[in-house]
Amino acid sequence: MSLTFPTQAVSIDLQDRSYSIAIGADLISQASTFADLPKAAAALIVTNATVAPLYAARLQAALAPHYKTVHQVVLPDGEEFKTWQTLNLIFDALLENNCDRKTVLFALGGGVVGDMTGFAAASYMRGVPFVQVPTTLLAQVDSSVGGKTGINHPLGKNMVGAFYQPQRVVCDLSTLNTLPEREVSAGLAEIIKYGPIADMAFLDWLGAHLAALRARDVGALTHAVRRSCEIKAEVVSQDEREGGLRAILNFGHTFGHAIEAGLGYGQWLHGEAVGCGMVMAAHLSHRLGLVDAAFVQRLTHLIERAGLPTRGPLLDEADNAGRYLELMRVDKKAEGGEIRFVLIDGPGRACVRGASDALVREVINACCATSA
Amino acid sequence: MSLTFPTQAVSIDLQDRSYSIAIGADLISQASTFADLPKAAAALIVTNATVAPLYAARLQAALAPHYKTVHQVVLPDGEEFKTWQTLNLIFDALLENNCDRKTVLFALGGGVVGDMTGFAAASYMRGVPFVQVPTTLLAQVDSSVGGKTGINHPLGKNMVGAFYQPQRVVCDLSTLNTLPEREVSAGLAEIIKYGPIADMAFLDWLGAHLAALRARDVGALTHAVRRSCEIKAEVVSQDEREGGLRAILNFGHTFGHAIEAGLGYGQWLHGEAVGCGMVMAAHLSHRLGLVDAAFVQRLTHLIERAGLPTRGPLLDEADNAGRYLELMRVDKKAEGGEIRFVLIDGPGRACVRGASDALVREVINACCATSA
Repeated sequence: MSLTFPTQAVSIDLQDRSYSIAIGADLISQASTFADLPKAAAALIVTNATVAPLYAARLQAALAPHYKTVHQVVLPDGEEFKTWQTLNLIFDALLENNCDRKTVLFALGGGVVGDMTGFAAASYMRGVPFVQVPTTLLAQVDSSVGGKTGINHPLGKNMVGAFYQPQRVVCDLSTLNTLPEREVSAGLAEIIKYGPIADMAFLDWLGAHLAALRARDVGALTHAVRRSCEIKAEVVSQDEREGGLRAILNFGHTFGHAIEAGLGYGQWLHGEAVGCGMVMAAHLSHRLGLVDAAFVQRLTHLIERAGLPTRGPLLDEADNAGRYLELMRVDKKAEGGEIRFVLIDGPGRACVRGASDALVREVINACCATSA
Repeated sequence: MSLTFPTQAVSIDLQDRSYSIAIGADLISQASTFADLPKAAAALIVTNATVAPLYAARLQAALAPHYKTVHQVVLPDGEEFKTWQTLNLIFDALLENNCDRKTVLFALGGGVVGDMTGFAAASYMRGVPFVQVPTTLLAQVDSSVGGKTGINHPLGKNMVGAFYQPQRVVCDLSTLNTLPEREVSAGLAEIIKYGPIADMAFLDWLGAHLAALRARDVGALTHAVRRSCEIKAEVVSQDEREGGLRAILNFGHTFGHAIEAGLGYGQWLHGEAVGCGMVMAAHLSHRLGLVDAAFVQRLTHLIERAGLPTRGPLLDEADNAGRYLELMRVDKKAEGGEIRFVLIDGPGRACVRGASDALVREVINACCATSA
């Protein structure tokens, strides 16, 4: 007998920009999933070359009852294409098809597709509606929720973008069956993140269900995606534009962004860099006396079990820590050149603070590989 | 004895996005003009190659007491540079100087500089504060007020952008002394616009003071800029994101955008295209029975006296009206392929409605040159 898991819904409360997140199996094949969205003559599915052959036809069929025409644009796949040039392919498709300012965009893919489609929706004719249909675990639990959109600049990740909320997020867990194992691990990094910053009981649960999650058990995935979205929704509802609290969602991201930028975007997956970045941030928290060594060890072990790297790459033979610091200083959270770290201020609670360069250097030296 | 005119202030009421417009002489030379803006370590002046040698040093000096560092980026001048490539020069300058998310941008120049700086401010790190310092008449009475920002796409004007409000608008009338006569006329087009859509008494006043305005009389300019900003502020306060009412500010712009796109951006100034577009929209209003012939004649005469073209250019030898229609169908205001015209529904009142292709063709044929 096979168990079925009912579709779950998480609400994100942002007044007139509120929306819901649907979590379940086989959602993108059903027309009802996309009922009651803003009325429009046309829709545009934005996807990438990897996802298109797997799921675009299914989504196209589910949208057909709702729109007179459903266009598609297929972007190249990869973080290295999260650029203005690729974004412009979306604008080209919209304008070549005479899409008006009511056109609804559907982001079918991972975080890169979601971030670019969201920014295109925010900017096309100064704003059209869009729907997130994330097909990676990472996008389902993090990037598709909360309205952060954008592209990379050669000098920094996500440096150009907008806060722009989708009309709906549809997390179809069935799409995870085609996800490479490495990307499942990357998604687990963002799931694990919610434990130390907000819910240590969830971290316990993850420790007990890591094997089921890596095996893509629908029941385990439903709980993990739902709990992740709930925590994110609560944080974002309180601080949509990252005036303060929201920054805690960037636990592991300051070190992680330095890794991604230093290696060149796309070398490590975002989730891999975040996994390793969480280890480094935990070490820094420990050296500041905020958590004990056992906490660092426990978190590191879980990240390792998730199939993620726990040692930072060597970014510069001559002055590795200096290179990390240089890259972190251009992070969006830096202010007047001071790096703002998201740290664990006792298990289950995050804080944002600075740290001396000397201490950060110690952490980098302790946590990084010594040869490339 | 020379008359002095006190600085005027117009408020634009948008709740937490409210701001004021300062109108007066010699404003950019005074540090006090820029007091009480959001605190930041750094500012970036964005200007162009024409305006920089005239006014950038003055603004730089006025900002020096307020910021630790004031950077500058000088863009090429012209509508043809209102592109992603030019916009990216602003992001380059911000990132190369390690500018953080509190950095304040100052747009010193005309509408192109203002629109691009505003979009850069909306998008850099998902939003930093900015101040409009318009140095053309057109930018002072129209584009710098109301938060419309953006860039052009090869397939359409202002197709990519954001609604993003400045912290302040500073209209220094002294900067108009260096403005070419053709650009004064272009600015007058947007000033004249406010008469038929909202205030026929203002149109009377303009008829009586057109010579003084073209001679850049500070008293006449103060009144014209102030009244224009008041009307625009009232409309924008009621409809920030162009859900309805705000569209009336686009009187003359549907035909005007077709002229600009058809000739290639930068051939006609935006204000010239709008001036001619108002004549065409007035003709269409008349053919729909909304205004009498005397109104059309009166408006046409005033536009002519402002030094603006009143006959549309030939865009296509074979099917000129067809080309206009094709270009207007990709206008942002079009919905599902139907062109939405801003028309005069009796003097001093605007409406937005469609019209049959046949009638629009008649208007284009009557209002356009028959050879290039």
